[in-house]
Amino acid sequence: MTQTIADRRDIDFVLFEQFEADSLIKSEKYADFTKKMLDMIITEARSFALKEFLPTYKEGDREGVRLENGAVTVPECYRRAHKLYQEGEWLALTQSPEYGGQGLPHVIAQAVFEYLIGSNYTLTMYGILACGSGKLIELYGSQKIKDLFLQNVYSGKWGGTMLLTEPQAGSDLGSITTQAVSNGDGTYSLKGNKIFISNGDQNLTENIIHPVLARIQGAPAGTRGISLFLVPKFWVNDDGSIGEFNHITCTGIEEKMGLHGSPTCSMSMGEKGLCRGYLLGEENKGMAGMFQMMNDVRLEVGTQSFAHASAAYLYAVDYATQRLQGRKLGDTDLNAPQVPIVHHPDVRRMLMSMKAYVEGMRSFTYYVALCFDKAACAETDAQKQHYTGLIDILTPVVKSYCSEKGFDVCVQAMQVFGGYGYTKDYPIEQILRDCKICSIYEGSNGIQAMDFLGRKLGMNNGQVFLSLSLEIEKTIAMAKTHDPLFTMAQKLGQAMETFKETALLIARLASSKNFDTAFLYAHPLMEVTGDLVMAWMLLWRATVAITRTADKKQASFYQGQIKSAEYFIHAMIPITLGKMESIKNCNDAAISIREDAFAG
Amino acid sequence: MTQTIADRRDIDFVLFEQFEADSLIKSEKYADFTKKMLDMIITEARSFALKEFLPTYKEGDREGVRLENGAVTVPECYRRAHKLYQEGEWLALTQSPEYGGQGLPHVIAQAVFEYLIGSNYTLTMYGILACGSGKLIELYGSQKIKDLFLQNVYSGKWGGTMLLTEPQAGSDLGSITTQAVSNGDGTYSLKGNKIFISNGDQNLTENIIHPVLARIQGAPAGTRGISLFLVPKFWVNDDGSIGEFNHITCTGIEEKMGLHGSPTCSMSMGEKGLCRGYLLGEENKGMAGMFQMMNDVRLEVGTQSFAHASAAYLYAVDYATQRLQGRKLGDTDLNAPQVPIVHHPDVRRMLMSMKAYVEGMRSFTYYVALCFDKAACAETDAQKQHYTGLIDILTPVVKSYCSEKGFDVCVQAMQVFGGYGYTKDYPIEQILRDCKICSIYEGSNGIQAMDFLGRKLGMNNGQVFLSLSLEIEKTIAMAKTHDPLFTMAQKLGQAMETFKETALLIARLASSKNFDTAFLYAHPLMEVTGDLVMAWMLLWRATVAITRTADKKQASFYQGQIKSAEYFIHAMIPITLGKMESIKNCNDAAISIREDAFAG
Repeated sequence: MTQTIADRRDIDFVLFEQFEADSLIKSEKYADFTKKMLDMIITEARSFALKEFLPTYKEGDREGVRLENGAVTVPECYRRAHKLYQEGEWLALTQSPEYGGQGLPHVIAQAVFEYLIGSNYTLTMYGILACGSGKLIELYGSQKIKDLFLQNVYSGKWGGTMLLTEPQAGSDLGSITTQAVSNGDGTYSLKGNKIFISNGDQNLTENIIHPVLARIQGAPAGTRGISLFLVPKFWVNDDGSIGEFNHITCTGIEEKMGLHGSPTCSMSMGEKGLCRGYLLGEENKGMAGMFQMMNDVRLEVGTQSFAHASAAYLYAVDYATQRLQGRKLGDTDLNAPQVPIVHHPDVRRMLMSMKAYVEGMRSFTYYVALCFDKAACAETDAQKQHYTGLIDILTPVVKSYCSEKGFDVCVQAMQVFGGYGYTKDYPIEQILRDCKICSIYEGSNGIQAMDFLGRKLGMNNGQVFLSLSLEIEKTIAMAKTHDPLFTMAQKLGQAMETFKETALLIARLASSKNFDTAFLYAHPLMEVTGDLVMAWMLLWRATVAITRTADKKQASFYQGQIKSAEYFIHAMIPITLGKMESIKNCNDAAISIREDAFAG
Repeated sequence: MTQTIADRRDIDFVLFEQFEADSLIKSEKYADFTKKMLDMIITEARSFALKEFLPTYKEGDREGVRLENGAVTVPECYRRAHKLYQEGEWLALTQSPEYGGQGLPHVIAQAVFEYLIGSNYTLTMYGILACGSGKLIELYGSQKIKDLFLQNVYSGKWGGTMLLTEPQAGSDLGSITTQAVSNGDGTYSLKGNKIFISNGDQNLTENIIHPVLARIQGAPAGTRGISLFLVPKFWVNDDGSIGEFNHITCTGIEEKMGLHGSPTCSMSMGEKGLCRGYLLGEENKGMAGMFQMMNDVRLEVGTQSFAHASAAYLYAVDYATQRLQGRKLGDTDLNAPQVPIVHHPDVRRMLMSMKAYVEGMRSFTYYVALCFDKAACAETDAQKQHYTGLIDILTPVVKSYCSEKGFDVCVQAMQVFGGYGYTKDYPIEQILRDCKICSIYEGSNGIQAMDFLGRKLGMNNGQVFLSLSLEIEKTIAMAKTHDPLFTMAQKLGQAMETFKETALLIARLASSKNFDTAFLYAHPLMEVTGDLVMAWMLLWRATVAITRTADKKQASFYQGQIKSAEYFIHAMIPITLGKMESIKNCNDAAISIREDAFAG
């Protein structure tokens, strides 16, 4: 069967050959699962996504969302698919079974997400946001709040959002002005306006649960005075029944480049009546709460972009092996039949590049998810700290790197399709439009870069960075034991040395008076980190594959793993070394240039 | 006045300070112009573009084109703008005055195009395609054909197209099957179907003149049997009056990612009645004819992408200097006012990068245009050959490099806008969609790369490549005479040495039995060539600017020129060196991988 959306063979390889994820079921936390069950879940997810989500992808884009009389209507075809999504319990995959979650390992959930997102991201997003709201309730809600909301949110019966951004407070959340006033009964009255709220309103669920960042009267300025509230669209009575409208209203929806199946709403609270909410967690600690769930969200964005890329790549492979055009290079017989374009070197170059990036990103995103599981199953504090550290340092990288390289893969896929790729006859142009958001939302990549250089690189006196380096070097050492991989391992090892020097140089500069110049190179340094993680993942894959090439039936697959590593290390890592040279130059033209020189 | 779409100061700098384009008026060909006239033409073009074209940009995208009963309707607001475009004689800028052209130097026309394209490309395109058809008539038409068509085409009274592509013949034009049968009276009857025909039908002009590639019965297979015909939508009687419908029909229009203001048509010829055409040029020499005009078209595509980038950059600068968000890095006062985002290092990094690429591409595209003028004014055969050679070798580079880097600039501009950039509130998302076509059409960049490596690199025993290198080295030598530029000049000089080695290596490989591997690196080598041309152009600008920094009023502008060069040579050229390392590795994974390894 032709692979669509995601390559099942490669997913299995990552899960069970590279990461040996089935070993997780030895831990108590996942003891209820068997390897067979995990296989089955992925098989079912694939079948569900291809059968129910994928057919709605194009229509969702075409029909889009509508706002009429303050109510948002989603594409009609989403209603049935969302119902099945809910009934099939595909939403709260990793969440606690106590409140209706599936309790799956994160790394297994990645495979499910890959199929769902790749088939129809905006549809999947309704579930992702519901579960994101639920996560905040689970972390910060009182027992009463948990009992009132959690089951309905995790099941997808109620939707969820995140109300952070305001017109003057985008990346700068400290400037939030939405006000909360205590009602004295444990609830607060909220008043304010938010923008860019994904799924702020929709007609898929009977209620919507909004986590809201707001400022309690008299709170300190900046991020230290922000609290987190839970604001339902309809008030939920103590018996769990749905009460009156809570005066949180959608006042407008954005027209966007992509994601047409998901409304991006302007929301108004308390304008025409009381809008009540519960405080989640402590007063003025809202940002900390929000940040705790940000790691999940940022991995999800990386995964979104990667899943778009995975789908785009497979569409491109399919097209390149079918589309006949031109003769084989060097064939001078004008009457020779046309060949599939996969035979043309430049098309092969693009496919090879896409393959390496998609496989590398699959391993990368799954690895971060695996770290969540390993941290959760850790038997010692040191182990837990190790994996938490890896999550911390890799989160800005997985978000930003995958969002950019995933988009680049989509662009290359369009190029393989030629003129057809630019038309709506094929899904590539939509995938490309949908994918573009990833570098922007949930903390733009510039914010990720500041987090990476400003907080993560020096975390625990650089121990976290060191842990990451040691993990990479472990793989390099392993690869060196296989003769055919020796040169690659050596090259990556040398690149790692340069990387450590470069990171140290920039980290030091960031603590000097020339910190502005250091932050010019925050993004480039983060990108280089991503390159090296990719090379690491691909080399790791090669060390597994090389022991299995005798398996004749799967020789192409395993050989292909080694080729991906070869391509990346011999053709991409030299460019990464160039990027590090560039960083080490620390040229400050972008800082020292006068502002009025930017435009005549 | 705020700069919009294109930076007039920078245009003047390129034209009159870097290239001294006013010296062209010393030649007989352009003797009718004065410097003052040239200035005025650009001023008028700017004013016309901003006043009449720009206001139609968004509406053209939103309304799009419609096909009803075989007739295409363009966005209503285009009708007035197109009339003014025609009345203002903005179409045939460089064409011969004998047939209504303006006879302007190409390099001056670049400035006009930059404003028109940046304001509304699809509207400009109606004129560009009319003139493209006219060019073929001027080159290959009999006197009768010229008299019948040319004036009306160059004035924009009649539209034009190019009918090349068929479903099975995209990049592979040799597979064209459209048939032409002689009628014995100097005309031919055509029968066949074409796809992807820009502006194949529209309601802007009373007639449309279609150059068509077709095969005369009994012609040899492949590209050697293709002839070029001129097929009007309505037959033109010998007295110049419009006659009967000529049975060339639009049977469908594509839904596309962008360029919504321009119909991409499927065309059918001779299905329900006689479709007649004139042969242009000799039988079976149609491809040669088509290729002769391809240099113009490819420069235009590079210019299109660059103009999108130029507009996107200026929008981003404007936004970054207005949008308040966050505090200055290192400012710990939570009550400090928000600053414009241009103060944040990562935003500055993006603006600096966009500035360097936009300025480099402006010089690059204008330089290729200048080579057309220099070739036309050449006093000796050697001079003519020199400039024609530069056009030949730079054409695939200017098309592919600008199409890719121009798009990258648009992507960065969107990133500067954050979430707003993804919405239709700002023009960036449309510019990005419109720009994406450039790497694909008029010979996909893969085709450009084959042309570059397969034909241009070794042209005249490598003399053309040598000419280009010598031109670059001339600038390097000049820069070395200015102390502050010495290090930059030296670095670029070293990069040029590596470049020549790399190009030679790949050129040799292309003539060996491993030519497949060589062609894997055709695109990377072309990209590296583009990088070096950019560095050359920016260093050239710096050599001019450095002599003028004493001009206090313009100190920012001139200093900004030096900063662009610094940025590019210190921060980008190290990456180019990495790309050359990568090329020199000649890794063949993409060739040696088994085809079935591309997807599980």
